[in-house]
Amino acid sequence: MVNIGIIGAGRIGKVHLKSITYNVKNATVKAIADPFMSAEAEAFAKDMGVKVITKDYKEIINDPEIDAVLVCSSTDTHAAISIEAIKAGKHVFCEKPVHTSIEKIKEVARVAGESGKKLQIGFNRRFDHNHGHVQQLAASGKLGNIELIKITSRDPEPPSPEYAASSGGLYIDMMIHDFDMAMFLAGCDVEEVYAMGTSLVDKRIGEAGDVDTAIVTLTFKNGALGVIDNSRRAAYGYDQRVEVFGSLGMAADENDGDSTVRVFTADGVVSDKPQFFFLERYMASFTSEMRQFVAAVRGEGEVPVGIHAGLMSVVLAKAAKKSLDEHRPVKISEILEA
Amino acid sequence: MVNIGIIGAGRIGKVHLKSITYNVKNATVKAIADPFMSAEAEAFAKDMGVKVITKDYKEIINDPEIDAVLVCSSTDTHAAISIEAIKAGKHVFCEKPVHTSIEKIKEVARVAGESGKKLQIGFNRRFDHNHGHVQQLAASGKLGNIELIKITSRDPEPPSPEYAASSGGLYIDMMIHDFDMAMFLAGCDVEEVYAMGTSLVDKRIGEAGDVDTAIVTLTFKNGALGVIDNSRRAAYGYDQRVEVFGSLGMAADENDGDSTVRVFTADGVVSDKPQFFFLERYMASFTSEMRQFVAAVRGEGEVPVGIHAGLMSVVLAKAAKKSLDEHRPVKISEILEA
Amino acid sequence: MVNIGIIGAGRIGKVHLKSITYNVKNATVKAIADPFMSAEAEAFAKDMGVKVITKDYKEIINDPEIDAVLVCSSTDTHAAISIEAIKAGKHVFCEKPVHTSIEKIKEVARVAGESGKKLQIGFNRRFDHNHGHVQQLAASGKLGNIELIKITSRDPEPPSPEYAASSGGLYIDMMIHDFDMAMFLAGCDVEEVYAMGTSLVDKRIGEAGDVDTAIVTLTFKNGALGVIDNSRRAAYGYDQRVEVFGSLGMAADENDGDSTVRVFTADGVVSDKPQFFFLERYMASFTSEMRQFVAAVRGEGEVPVGIHAGLMSVVLAKAAKKSLDEHRPVKISEILEA
Amino acid sequence: MVNIGIIGAGRIGKVHLKSITYNVKNATVKAIADPFMSAEAEAFAKDMGVKVITKDYKEIINDPEIDAVLVCSSTDTHAAISIEAIKAGKHVFCEKPVHTSIEKIKEVARVAGESGKKLQIGFNRRFDHNHGHVQQLAASGKLGNIELIKITSRDPEPPSPEYAASSGGLYIDMMIHDFDMAMFLAGCDVEEVYAMGTSLVDKRIGEAGDVDTAIVTLTFKNGALGVIDNSRRAAYGYDQRVEVFGSLGMAADENDGDSTVRVFTADGVVSDKPQFFFLERYMASFTSEMRQFVAAVRGEGEVPVGIHAGLMSVVLAKAAKKSLDEHRPVKISEILEA
Repeated sequence: MVNIGIIGAGRIGKVHLKSITYNVKNATVKAIADPFMSAEAEAFAKDMGVKVITKDYKEIINDPEIDAVLVCSSTDTHAAISIEAIKAGKHVFCEKPVHTSIEKIKEVARVAGESGKKLQIGFNRRFDHNHGHVQQLAASGKLGNIELIKITSRDPEPPSPEYAASSGGLYIDMMIHDFDMAMFLAGCDVEEVYAMGTSLVDKRIGEAGDVDTAIVTLTFKNGALGVIDNSRRAAYGYDQRVEVFGSLGMAADENDGDSTVRVFTADGVVSDKPQFFFLERYMASFTSEMRQFVAAVRGEGEVPVGIHAGLMSVVLAKAAKKSLDEHRPVKISEILEA
Repeated sequence: MVNIGIIGAGRIGKVHLKSITYNVKNATVKAIADPFMSAEAEAFAKDMGVKVITKDYKEIINDPEIDAVLVCSSTDTHAAISIEAIKAGKHVFCEKPVHTSIEKIKEVARVAGESGKKLQIGFNRRFDHNHGHVQQLAASGKLGNIELIKITSRDPEPPSPEYAASSGGLYIDMMIHDFDMAMFLAGCDVEEVYAMGTSLVDKRIGEAGDVDTAIVTLTFKNGALGVIDNSRRAAYGYDQRVEVFGSLGMAADENDGDSTVRVFTADGVVSDKPQFFFLERYMASFTSEMRQFVAAVRGEGEVPVGIHAGLMSVVLAKAAKKSLDEHRPVKISEILEA
Repeated sequence: MVNIGIIGAGRIGKVHLKSITYNVKNATVKAIADPFMSAEAEAFAKDMGVKVITKDYKEIINDPEIDAVLVCSSTDTHAAISIEAIKAGKHVFCEKPVHTSIEKIKEVARVAGESGKKLQIGFNRRFDHNHGHVQQLAASGKLGNIELIKITSRDPEPPSPEYAASSGGLYIDMMIHDFDMAMFLAGCDVEEVYAMGTSLVDKRIGEAGDVDTAIVTLTFKNGALGVIDNSRRAAYGYDQRVEVFGSLGMAADENDGDSTVRVFTADGVVSDKPQFFFLERYMASFTSEMRQFVAAVRGEGEVPVGIHAGLMSVVLAKAAKKSLDEHRPVKISEILEA
Repeated sequence: MVNIGIIGAGRIGKVHLKSITYNVKNATVKAIADPFMSAEAEAFAKDMGVKVITKDYKEIINDPEIDAVLVCSSTDTHAAISIEAIKAGKHVFCEKPVHTSIEKIKEVARVAGESGKKLQIGFNRRFDHNHGHVQQLAASGKLGNIELIKITSRDPEPPSPEYAASSGGLYIDMMIHDFDMAMFLAGCDVEEVYAMGTSLVDKRIGEAGDVDTAIVTLTFKNGALGVIDNSRRAAYGYDQRVEVFGSLGMAADENDGDSTVRVFTADGVVSDKPQFFFLERYMASFTSEMRQFVAAVRGEGEVPVGIHAGLMSVVLAKAAKKSLDEHRPVKISEILEA
């Protein structure tokens, strides 16, 4: 049995708590910590049978019974807490982004590497039944040599301008998932990035120095080309599609709706919209990533998403921002070796 | 060059005239006849380059230059004119139904058989790109032994009660196409029919002794089962679907829309409705059947739809009517040997 | 908290045990009983935290702490155990069919009615996200007056001839779900049934007196017509589709696949097959029905599927068998008032 | 009646000849000219009733009976022949690209503008039932403000390296259609282009100085962003899709197949591939563009695709090539004002 401590009792911390309790074998959440633990979160944790509910994450770090720590705290603390937990002998699952500083991420990588502890990064979309199936087809060789990768990722509703301003910007806050997905689908890293971005959804987002509508093109190390488009607001819901085109064919997925029902009337043929947002759309993937993390902790193989993915996704986000600012293609090496 | 005369300048006569003129090689329409030839039909025929435009169909029968006759006149004259044309040495394409009397159809068959002239019946849906492809899959063996056949056929708008009353009823006026399609898909004749029918669309149709909503089940000679459903009014347009289920799998088609566009908004995902009615939906099939008729007349093989199809479709319609009236399954032999 | 005892630890008993444990609030399974309790079932029950694991279902009946009983035992014991449980003051969830004797079902209804205890029948498909959505559309009036109902229901693999022989036959073993679905979609009972059936999948099923391929037509009390087709073997998987056609339009669902991915190669465009069988396809519906049962037990409204559904589904199955045997349409009243 | 002369009897010249003869009212092809007129082309022209079949296009230019000229000759002669025809008082339909020199295109524009003669450019895809419907939705305001435009355009088979070398390159030979489509969908011109390109399909194409796989991003004058991807070889056929995303929703089309049939077997669910190539896929659009050209010549409104489209599409192609060569985003003004 893997004893787990969760640091951070916000939305994603609760998602993992619920997944582990209900759907992950051989694991139990012993403790959860949050400096701003709400009464609602506390009640939920109790309901899930969590024994230790605390405001001090050190209680988790220092608990010798705890084998693994999920770092679900605020973004700026991910790296430091991960390092602290690893040094205390814990396996770590760290939410993305690991940090906004390349140096910090490299430090986490170094510490984890020296420790021999497992370190998994929270790119849950890799475990999605649609995108994951496309990746398997690509990796299987069934599509031949990969030549083009296209990712569409649009949120249903824009964040507040305040959030956008403090989030680090669209490339690191939102497109980071797509950067990781692109490399996951391509089976290799990216060499160069060119970024376009503008604020068409809410001009206050632009005034706050961020973009809400973006297209980023990628050159992969294997020679393939890629493109990602993001919007902070799709009127019809959460739009999540990927497409891999190779020398032997293409695999592409569609959005999931709540049902397959079509309604035929004089007005047309109406199908379901995409499921509303990530909690509906990607719930099963959160369970899958946690199952694989627990398996890795139990010695059943490696973690499926390591620190390299955590590093490269942030590097790409930074390269995209630099490309936007300097209005030119930016090589990954410019960021990585800066 | 096959010289053609068209008897009947109504809707279907004009469809064939246009098809032949524009899209059928090695054939030309020399003459068209209609006792009630409208000024509009006459102008259209002139525009298509028809040399002889007349009220008297005998001019066509007696024209030695004419090789083949299309019988597109009113239903009650199909059989007699076909016989007359065959006896005058013409090849004949006869619209469905050949006649409402089994005896009359058998007579047409006899005359045609003795003459050696080609006789094709106008079941155009066999030439449809969707249904025809399903049939090819069924006939190819790819679906294994055929076990179930399902046909949905619904018109966009009901006829007037007067028309319904004079049409011979839904089974012979509308479902006759589906009876032929069922045997075409099954690759064999039907042994027994059970018919349900009611008037839910327009009760005046019921008062006139007809039905507007019907389900008919079929037992095929090869042991497969089948079902056809008809409605005189589908609010969303002309609904034309077939499905063949066999031991190795299923082939099914969908309706054609005017485009493949989907519109995604806050209200849902909207696709095109089925194309409006048979002139839109089946236009290409009219051309295909005519091409094959002309090829047969030119000695390039047999007609693709012979008098047996003309006979059996009417037999099934009569069996269905009898089944409805007597509220019991009816064997085809009861009609055929009556 | 609703304390539940499950009688029967076979496939469906374990499905409910897992659903309740993981996904149903305010309920816990205290005990499970099975005269042939396997070691595997016992281990699973322990894992789910069940306190009482027994071979004697009387332990559940006699446990005053248990509020509700799930009757998941062999079909021939459903009615007797349900009655016994109700008389012991338990609420009952009874799997289908309640019994093959109309009299017995009526007795269950009587006992339940007099007791005031909740009695729910296990027609889980009513809770399916696809079929349930079609029903909501039908009930909402958005489709207008209901005129035609079509249900396709095909299993991926045939049972052994021995099973088929002992199952009571396809109409009561398999089509019973579709009979219930038909009435659920129509919003009313059926008046008359006409059944076709044959053994095309495995002739030994026919030799055992059963059918494996069937079409049954229905006349509903509200005047609508319906048709159900069943096959014991669909090479492409579990085929589960419903269609409701009304005066204002149609709602129809499609099968669920494991993903929305399409693969485009020189060979064609390949999509996922339907999910394999009912455990994959209908798992969410088992949870939903259990949630509503627990809610009803807790006094939050009525059970969503009462004994009337349990009765009528069996009546239709018997009418279908009689129709097949006597080769004629059979009125429901012939069975109900027999 | 509009009398038409066609200059160039290659593939596209014959397409127009056939369209006009069979499907365009009020127009007739009187003459066709080609310096390398093949026997097959001559026979075809005779079959279509063309009176004048010649090797010398001057016969068409000098024929006072001819009202309009279709310039379907080799690309390098488009501009000069168009100017000559306009000066001879003819209306002109000119295939794309008008010329590879911006100056030459501007000269054509000037001559046409001064003459008052109609000049239409052959961007047939604007008339496609799918893409055209997306554009209508975009233009109607139903999608709100346009924010993102995505175009996928992939050929089924690569050209020979020799052709690629002589074609002017992918951007002007193939993507020119997509540049025009992008501006058509956006309803405005492009301001800046960034081009990626590589040779993954056939390295000899790369050795010949061209690319066969490309992604180009666009910034539109109205602030929207766009992306086009091209491949010279899609194993599954001709892939032609567009997508317009706006503040109120999205419209997207799918490829056309030959039928709507799906085949369900143990191996999966197989649908039709996209139609093979442009003659199959876009045939109806060739007829539509010609109908509108003839209507314009007859004084019924303006030409639907004027010289501005001819100019801007080439400007974008040149900007893309420059972007690729200089590895930076290129402003349209750099080309237009060069």
